[in-house]
Amino acid sequence: MEQSQQKGRASIAPAQPVYIKDAATVVGKMEGEGPLAEYFDMICDTDKFGEETWEAAESRMQREAAALVLGKTDLGAADIRYIFAGDLLGQNIATSFGLMDYEIPLFGLYGACSTLGEGMSLATMCLAGGFAKRAMVVTSSHFASAEKNFRFPVEYANQRPLSATWTVTGSGAYILTTEQTAVRITGVTTGKIMDYGVRDAQNMGAAMAPAAMDLIKTHLQDFGRKPTEYDRIVTGDLGTVGQEILIRLLQEEGIDISDRHEDCGIRIFDSEAQGTQAGGSGCGCSAVTLAAWYLPRLISGEYRRILFVPTGALLSQVSFNEGQNVPGIAHGIVLEHVDEEA
Amino acid sequence: MEQSQQKGRASIAPAQPVYIKDAATVVGKMEGEGPLAEYFDMICDTDKFGEETWEAAESRMQREAAALVLGKTDLGAADIRYIFAGDLLGQNIATSFGLMDYEIPLFGLYGACSTLGEGMSLATMCLAGGFAKRAMVVTSSHFASAEKNFRFPVEYANQRPLSATWTVTGSGAYILTTEQTAVRITGVTTGKIMDYGVRDAQNMGAAMAPAAMDLIKTHLQDFGRKPTEYDRIVTGDLGTVGQEILIRLLQEEGIDISDRHEDCGIRIFDSEAQGTQAGGSGCGCSAVTLAAWYLPRLISGEYRRILFVPTGALLSQVSFNEGQNVPGIAHGIVLEHVDEEA
Repeated sequence: MEQSQQKGRASIAPAQPVYIKDAATVVGKMEGEGPLAEYFDMICDTDKFGEETWEAAESRMQREAAALVLGKTDLGAADIRYIFAGDLLGQNIATSFGLMDYEIPLFGLYGACSTLGEGMSLATMCLAGGFAKRAMVVTSSHFASAEKNFRFPVEYANQRPLSATWTVTGSGAYILTTEQTAVRITGVTTGKIMDYGVRDAQNMGAAMAPAAMDLIKTHLQDFGRKPTEYDRIVTGDLGTVGQEILIRLLQEEGIDISDRHEDCGIRIFDSEAQGTQAGGSGCGCSAVTLAAWYLPRLISGEYRRILFVPTGALLSQVSFNEGQNVPGIAHGIVLEHVDEEA
Repeated sequence: MEQSQQKGRASIAPAQPVYIKDAATVVGKMEGEGPLAEYFDMICDTDKFGEETWEAAESRMQREAAALVLGKTDLGAADIRYIFAGDLLGQNIATSFGLMDYEIPLFGLYGACSTLGEGMSLATMCLAGGFAKRAMVVTSSHFASAEKNFRFPVEYANQRPLSATWTVTGSGAYILTTEQTAVRITGVTTGKIMDYGVRDAQNMGAAMAPAAMDLIKTHLQDFGRKPTEYDRIVTGDLGTVGQEILIRLLQEEGIDISDRHEDCGIRIFDSEAQGTQAGGSGCGCSAVTLAAWYLPRLISGEYRRILFVPTGALLSQVSFNEGQNVPGIAHGIVLEHVDEEA
């Protein structure tokens, strides 16, 4: 294969086209009361999804999202060669118990809240490399399982600072394919771990903004582009605090994205009405917002090209308790509208 | 790219060759007193590796293993395009804090003890697809951090049943390359999650054996081969209990591997002398044993072809406490000796 698929230091531009066939979303009660309510495929009014535990509820969301996207695309599990999937819980248990029944070869991923980007990156390589015709990418997060996993069980009713983000209860499932559709993945930039010395597990936006800055800067260098060549540059879950930091950090590098930056975490909630502080977060946040809000606009051609940059904060309860910093990572995906005659 | 790189239902046979350039191993005290002692690159006599916590010690092992393999191959971090890495701890913290300083684009993986196979699978697709010339695959496990994460803190001094495996303190780092070396990766088979209803977190061999069975059966079908076409079929950490189950399950399928099956977990310790019950386990077990024992024999040509099948048990402390089963997953890699004139 030609090495020309490599772009710069950390990017690829697949010579063999890879497309998004479709996506499906499952969300919880609060997401279903937010501004994107009408665009989600399934809203559960209890957040338990009929299960006994928060973890089982999260698994159920992944299972339902996968079932919905298979239904939408009229495909069966046997038509999907690989699943790339992950969640935020220790040992990826939402994924393992959620996707087991499909009996599809699976690559388990952990990129914190950047996992959808990581999964799309690897699925793109897999398809563009000729190793599959179709792959599924699934991620999820759940407010209650994440709070228990990372901070305090919800039942403690602890107070939350204004910088805190609100973990989205949701799962998004995507089918990537080598057959032409209206949305093509034309570039992938892979992030490295960035540690800016943030130690506050309640301020994830600050922890992740440097990783997003580095990713966007590297991406623009690798492709030789300016921010104006993208209709939108969309981060995953920096929230309002992280957005401010990201824009400032990039300005220090001579890059201005202030007129075209958006964040899935800001878009998914009405933070004033819903009391979600700095915005939504979690693996599920960018997964459901990309599918519900941005994908239809790429399909219609309203957006010709966006850079999607989900970011992850790399911490665990153990690393936090042991006084470690919270480093970040980001993964970048270029999504472009494809004209029908193309 | 030609779709002919796909083999059967769950395998690939890369048309563009991918090779193992070299590997490096770092292990703890007990591994350094076992039968493979003389083949490891670095043995630490305290298991703390100069750090304050078990988790930081595990990170340090990854950092050292990566440094050693870069040193052996005379490469710098800038020569490695991607790292594929993971560990057993919640949120992959050993990996995040261990590999951060290299500033290499990173894909975080979670496949429990199968992660080395998962990483080699994805790195093979990445290189064979033309997306990089070199990638590193790193995994680790640490007895003390794993016991704390999955079962009981070591300080509790709980008794261990005979079926229990002993988590290996060790990290292995591999460099994969498109330049010819003596060992080529000629096949990859990707596992799906298998749940045989095992609920005992102290009996990982039983939980993982069905996944190994399914992987080996699928692999042989996909490639149209018999077990006798492999010098060895090597699982990661089934231990003695899991080995028995695997051989029996495959016999029920009409496949006999009893004369050529080996297990890294059985090989790494002298279980009678070292009191390690059923054998070694963990992401680090197969990573250091493949590098220390099997790789030199593939380089020399003593083994012409082996099937390497690390297996993972998909549980967390939370899933175990909530009464979930322990499903398993396996990833298969075909490693072949390359004659110099080839």
